[in-house]
Amino acid sequence: MTDRNVPRRGLMLVLSSPSGAGKSTISRALLRDEHQLSMSVSVTTRTPRPGEVHGKDYYFITVDEHRHMVANGELLEHAKVFDNYYGTPRAHVEKELAAGHDVLFDIDWQGTQQLKSSAPNDLVTVFILPPSIGELERRLRGRAQDSEEVMRKRMARAADEMSHWPEYEYIVVNREVDESIAQVRAILTAERLRRERRPGLADFVNDMRGGL
Amino acid sequence: MTDRNVPRRGLMLVLSSPSGAGKSTISRALLRDEHQLSMSVSVTTRTPRPGEVHGKDYYFITVDEHRHMVANGELLEHAKVFDNYYGTPRAHVEKELAAGHDVLFDIDWQGTQQLKSSAPNDLVTVFILPPSIGELERRLRGRAQDSEEVMRKRMARAADEMSHWPEYEYIVVNREVDESIAQVRAILTAERLRRERRPGLADFVNDMRGGL
Repeated sequence: MTDRNVPRRGLMLVLSSPSGAGKSTISRALLRDEHQLSMSVSVTTRTPRPGEVHGKDYYFITVDEHRHMVANGELLEHAKVFDNYYGTPRAHVEKELAAGHDVLFDIDWQGTQQLKSSAPNDLVTVFILPPSIGELERRLRGRAQDSEEVMRKRMARAADEMSHWPEYEYIVVNREVDESIAQVRAILTAERLRRERRPGLADFVNDMRGGL
Repeated sequence: MTDRNVPRRGLMLVLSSPSGAGKSTISRALLRDEHQLSMSVSVTTRTPRPGEVHGKDYYFITVDEHRHMVANGELLEHAKVFDNYYGTPRAHVEKELAAGHDVLFDIDWQGTQQLKSSAPNDLVTVFILPPSIGELERRLRGRAQDSEEVMRKRMARAADEMSHWPEYEYIVVNREVDESIAQVRAILTAERLRRERRPGLADFVNDMRGGL
């Protein structure tokens, strides 16, 4: 056996952040550059926004379908946010992990907490913080011409999401997006090298020691 | 407070490997390229080899001096290998960690086990494996015109050292040295981003949330 053939188990890379911290840009760059990494596409009961594609951005389903998936254990995690239901289909994730591929999750603290209980060993959790409050406000405001009411709601949600940073293993402060992408890639590279994700190493080393 | 000023605690990066796996090349590259990383220079009671520099390769000390350092708690770890005593001076390491700098250790499994008990939270352990038994033999033989007896002893020691790979967190198979260097650098980058090594983050986030 050569080390190229040593089987490894995939990992679940969770990126969470307050809205406006730059998580989507980082995710896109990772998916573009990283081999063996695919996105976990969530289900949602909310209405598609203009341009959103079923099966790429979300699987758009009914409340009834969501209820059935929960009842049948087909979701790794699920949550209700602003009157809408969300969830992570289990099948895609389990297939990828078993094949030694990694899966990227763009989920909030609620989803992360549930994944921690259902799959703690496969999980790598990263929280992305904005570099300053001014920068976060600028990015939240820059998005659209929203009313003050909507802005306040969004800021309150960002503050709430940010309060959960201590539940994550790695913290990336997104000052320069290229630096942040490099940091998340380093986390992915390092975690792939963890002994417990490489069940084939024991045979590989034993073969070598036998030859000495 | 900006995130540039968020204090972090340094970490202790341990590289272990059987002799001939390429660890010295990797260490030199890391020390050359990485800011905030310095080598932990061990003490030893063995005779200097030609070209070895006191204070750079080792601190060459007497058996008596070694005994005193052990008795005074001045060594983070110490061991006897082939009739010679070795050890890691505590003072340099503690000063660097407190300043937020990292320290590189080139020590064997015995030293690693002792560091694990004396400083588990600051430790990051990496084991470097050769890509194949043939390559390891080639590198061990390539070193010098040693007798078969010396070669056998060296091979036995390599096999023994290799048996300790499961005690390490990260495993790097040194197939291409540039790839291995990149992998160890990724481990260092990732570990620096771990939440528990960045005690200043709580204030940083609380300041931001307070402003929302």
